Amino acid sequence: MLEAIAGANDGHAGSYGADPETERFGELVREEFGQEATGFPMLNGTGANVAAIRAIARPHQAVICASTAHISIDETAAPEAIAGVKLLTVDTPDGRLTPELAATRLADPADLPHVAWPALISVAQATEVGTVYSPDEIRALADFAHDNEMLLHVDGARIANAAAGLGVSLNEASLGSGADVLTLGANKNGAVFGEAVVFADPVHAKGFEVLRKGSLQLASKMRFVSAQLNAQLADGLWREIADHSNSMARLLGNGIEWTEGAELGQPVQANIVFLSMKIEPARRLVESCAPHRPLLFEAGEAGIIRLVCSWDTQPEDVDTLLGLIREAAGHNH
Amino acid sequence: MLEAIAGANDGHAGSYGADPETERFGELVREEFGQEATGFPMLNGTGANVAAIRAIARPHQAVICASTAHISIDETAAPEAIAGVKLLTVDTPDGRLTPELAATRLADPADLPHVAWPALISVAQATEVGTVYSPDEIRALADFAHDNEMLLHVDGARIANAAAGLGVSLNEASLGSGADVLTLGANKNGAVFGEAVVFADPVHAKGFEVLRKGSLQLASKMRFVSAQLNAQLADGLWREIADHSNSMARLLGNGIEWTEGAELGQPVQANIVFLSMKIEPARRLVESCAPHRPLLFEAGEAGIIRLVCSWDTQPEDVDTLLGLIREAAGHNH
Amino acid sequence: MLEAIAGANDGHAGSYGADPETERFGELVREEFGQEATGFPMLNGTGANVAAIRAIARPHQAVICASTAHISIDETAAPEAIAGVKLLTVDTPDGRLTPELAATRLADPADLPHVAWPALISVAQATEVGTVYSPDEIRALADFAHDNEMLLHVDGARIANAAAGLGVSLNEASLGSGADVLTLGANKNGAVFGEAVVFADPVHAKGFEVLRKGSLQLASKMRFVSAQLNAQLADGLWREIADHSNSMARLLGNGIEWTEGAELGQPVQANIVFLSMKIEPARRLVESCAPHRPLLFEAGEAGIIRLVCSWDTQPEDVDTLLGLIREAAGHNH
Amino acid sequence: MLEAIAGANDGHAGSYGADPETERFGELVREEFGQEATGFPMLNGTGANVAAIRAIARPHQAVICASTAHISIDETAAPEAIAGVKLLTVDTPDGRLTPELAATRLADPADLPHVAWPALISVAQATEVGTVYSPDEIRALADFAHDNEMLLHVDGARIANAAAGLGVSLNEASLGSGADVLTLGANKNGAVFGEAVVFADPVHAKGFEVLRKGSLQLASKMRFVSAQLNAQLADGLWREIADHSNSMARLLGNGIEWTEGAELGQPVQANIVFLSMKIEPARRLVESCAPHRPLLFEAGEAGIIRLVCSWDTQPEDVDTLLGLIREAAGHNH
Repeated sequence: MLEAIAGANDGHAGSYGADPETERFGELVREEFGQEATGFPMLNGTGANVAAIRAIARPHQAVICASTAHISIDETAAPEAIAGVKLLTVDTPDGRLTPELAATRLADPADLPHVAWPALISVAQATEVGTVYSPDEIRALADFAHDNEMLLHVDGARIANAAAGLGVSLNEASLGSGADVLTLGANKNGAVFGEAVVFADPVHAKGFEVLRKGSLQLASKMRFVSAQLNAQLADGLWREIADHSNSMARLLGNGIEWTEGAELGQPVQANIVFLSMKIEPARRLVESCAPHRPLLFEAGEAGIIRLVCSWDTQPEDVDTLLGLIREAAGHNH
Repeated sequence: MLEAIAGANDGHAGSYGADPETERFGELVREEFGQEATGFPMLNGTGANVAAIRAIARPHQAVICASTAHISIDETAAPEAIAGVKLLTVDTPDGRLTPELAATRLADPADLPHVAWPALISVAQATEVGTVYSPDEIRALADFAHDNEMLLHVDGARIANAAAGLGVSLNEASLGSGADVLTLGANKNGAVFGEAVVFADPVHAKGFEVLRKGSLQLASKMRFVSAQLNAQLADGLWREIADHSNSMARLLGNGIEWTEGAELGQPVQANIVFLSMKIEPARRLVESCAPHRPLLFEAGEAGIIRLVCSWDTQPEDVDTLLGLIREAAGHNH
Repeated sequence: MLEAIAGANDGHAGSYGADPETERFGELVREEFGQEATGFPMLNGTGANVAAIRAIARPHQAVICASTAHISIDETAAPEAIAGVKLLTVDTPDGRLTPELAATRLADPADLPHVAWPALISVAQATEVGTVYSPDEIRALADFAHDNEMLLHVDGARIANAAAGLGVSLNEASLGSGADVLTLGANKNGAVFGEAVVFADPVHAKGFEVLRKGSLQLASKMRFVSAQLNAQLADGLWREIADHSNSMARLLGNGIEWTEGAELGQPVQANIVFLSMKIEPARRLVESCAPHRPLLFEAGEAGIIRLVCSWDTQPEDVDTLLGLIREAAGHNH
Repeated sequence: MLEAIAGANDGHAGSYGADPETERFGELVREEFGQEATGFPMLNGTGANVAAIRAIARPHQAVICASTAHISIDETAAPEAIAGVKLLTVDTPDGRLTPELAATRLADPADLPHVAWPALISVAQATEVGTVYSPDEIRALADFAHDNEMLLHVDGARIANAAAGLGVSLNEASLGSGADVLTLGANKNGAVFGEAVVFADPVHAKGFEVLRKGSLQLASKMRFVSAQLNAQLADGLWREIADHSNSMARLLGNGIEWTEGAELGQPVQANIVFLSMKIEPARRLVESCAPHRPLLFEAGEAGIIRLVCSWDTQPEDVDTLLGLIREAAGHNH
């Protein structure tokens, strides 16, 4: 990534996107997502999600999402305050929406004009708990959305891990299966900064250049963002990195399944592992592996710990972590 | 109310609140809610709630409320789009928040700066399902709010019915028991148009005149709103009207308890009655008493019907309705 | 107006607009503005303007208006904070925009994406300084707007006075001459409360019922607003009232032209008179006729006083006021 | 800058600002701006400005600024749509506000609650036309702001060039002379991405961490932003770079003063040069030096061309440009 940035260091390149790296990004997007697709480099994930929502839903409308969605629990109230939308959240067993679950938040026309009308469904691919949607599942959600006058947004902060885990292309995991707009994550897959928004249909991309600026997401020296996106998209580097993180997560997951007193809270389908333990050992573990910054969710007697593997996680790191888990669970070897 | 409006028809009175009726409203507010209280006539209930929220919470902050709250399900996304807040909803057994329930939506400081920080708790008095908070319960919520750097808002669209049902003053049912800001309902208690916002502490009222204008809620001929508020506040007319609606609701509730195949979904504490029946008779009933515009909530095999008694409901109306309920439930007399 | 309200006092009418008075309003709108027109009763003028803007312009876009526009100087920052738009103001000689003046605020495509793109021109008919646009002038602005991918909004807080002054219909003074959306004023022409928004094209009216609610402008007992609008629209009552105010303004204007030391700041074309005097006598006058609440604008050595005639201004009032003006100007007769 | 980024490449550093580089940035801010000062790395200039405004002004309030201000003409409607404020612009002779000019946009208390109340004055240091405020001038504006219940914001996108041009510290050019909040520019002084917001008083910084996230400006890998800010702040690198750009601008300015047919539109006080020519040669020049991306403002018979010198402008570049200017002006030597 640093090489990509250094390579983009051409002081005489145009600003605000009028540069060869950004042009190249446009081409790579069309190669991956089809000739109609348009990609826009952005500054961060929350900004990319909120701008994508603003492009589709109008203030006073609503967005249906899982109650675990990043846009609901990890973006302060930015979708509400900046996009002006209400988030209609749905509890899910594994972080994944289905048409049936989404249907529970559809507005009853009889309740108009009092209720906020959903204009968008937003799903995370992979989800915040590390599960993924198959292309067919994306397709089913897209069809459901379109049948109900909504569009489908994919928060792809971890789209690389999802696509690698599914063994499909980025496109098949999102727009190519019917979704309308994608937050294309780069940050969680190794980039220093920057993400992108990709629209499947030029109609929805119309005017987005101004909306990006108005959403505080325009990089003046955009080539440094584009260069990183390009490095990930070209030659499948994204898949290489994601495959590595995913395999480290599987390694960790397998180890946990063989550890007494510990079990998986969710199937391991991408680079996130949910470890379920009794609350006491869970607290001990979180303390002992503080440098890994695991997140602990307490649920009565149980503790759920979220562990993320990344491009620089090594098998030794997994071993060390498994050692700590066994120790916390009371099994020293 | 029409008399009150006609009485306010003095074309030479000042506009935007510089008139004797509005001055009188200020006095009546101080009499009822204490010498520190400040009242502001508003145009409608959603506007009063949203402006009250804007006065306390800043965009990107949050408001804790019951998942049945009017601000959550009946005001489109106005609290989100105009006040810029996230609503953190809590499921409740009977529409009423408790400190324990509210505590489930407190932000974990460890999650800062990613989560929206709650600045306000909002409760409806009476709730949207017709239950009421005792002054002690309001006090407990206010204490909990203040202990956690929040304030307490009471959506008093039905404050008259609540206070009458509790046998306490409007003040005891709200600000006098620790709440910080009150939406003082008038519309549902007979007014033609208009509501008010009342602040307990002048600190929170500071600048609200501009915020009211900026929230699209400034009446140019404010005397016509104030006159109606005054008519309700003076001489306890509000209680007289509310007592009537409440007693009609009790009459209806008693009748339902004696009806086989029908039961109460919530205790009758104000002017709203929740009738629970099997889904089939419920649908028949809703059809047969369409002019009463009952709301039907379908819940699997059960149907919950919301029936509201108002200032002009008569005992005969209750009888007729009970007849229809019995008929629907399959018991003709 | 009070009769109209009393006449609408049918407790069993539907709420939120499902009532005969509101249905009748829809018919009267179609009669006046054409079969494609749709009218929505609103609560106040600022709310009507802001909701109309929200219906057309998206947050981050802009609205071109005169620097004297009510939306710019008399609505706090509601258009900005609630509609999310930038107001691009233009100084005008007489409160009236022209295509040439509006063109000075068009965005240069070369400045994209950094500038706010104007989506709407907004003009007041009559203007805030009492001047009017002929139907041809409205047409020219509408053509200019449409040629530049904008729409035209008419803030008709004084549309009745303008149409009466021009001797044309409400429609010819606004939508019939090419404008797309009209704030139909009622308040300044005698109504107790309430205004309306009228769209020429159903495409722009789509979803406005929800947007009205979300803009804090939905009246639960809408029939009381509709009844007043109907009383004004039916049988040309609006013209009768406006003709009266306008002729009182002309009377006042003629008297001023014959008064030494006083002159007209703007031609009298509706019900507003701008009186120009030296600053000292102007201050004396404003003090002496405080009950008329004249507005004084100080401009160096000159004072401009804004005087508004209304439905209840009588010739004797004009005489008294002229006497005070002569006295202030130092000419007692 | 690239070295700084590479140096920050410690994958095990904490995210969202919990890293040594960001800690060091806090120290450098306190060294430069005083022990009470708090600094926050941000993603871009528009985001930094808008978040700073949100921290001070509430939606429905106003900000006084020059009509040439970046926040007014180069940030779409983001201040309006996201901070919810109205910008009260003032025409200035040289891009600089004075207390007298700002006073023309103060609200008249008699116009409350109809007008937007200014809560903030915002000035750019250096201004968008390359002029600077002396510390005394900043002080006068700060005093004026504080006397009128406002605060003072300095948009320091070019603060380095201003301080270098004035021969004072960054602090003296802004917070140290009474301003309350500073957008500390890094991008225009050589950084690859990132800016900062600095508050003089901890009271105004309270809660800004959440507001930054809610303003779409939180960098997950913040160390890469902080490292660049640190590189500029430490050892006075900022002044070295800015001195260079400024001296190149002076060189260019001097050359223009000696060129017949060309003159300076503004005094050269930082790194921006405004060249005034007849419109025809101005157009020729802009065409001939397109790679420099000069901005041309047409004003009747005159053309004003904005030329910016940066860290990598060399004396040879200035010579070449002066040659093109002379050629365009019709004077080849």
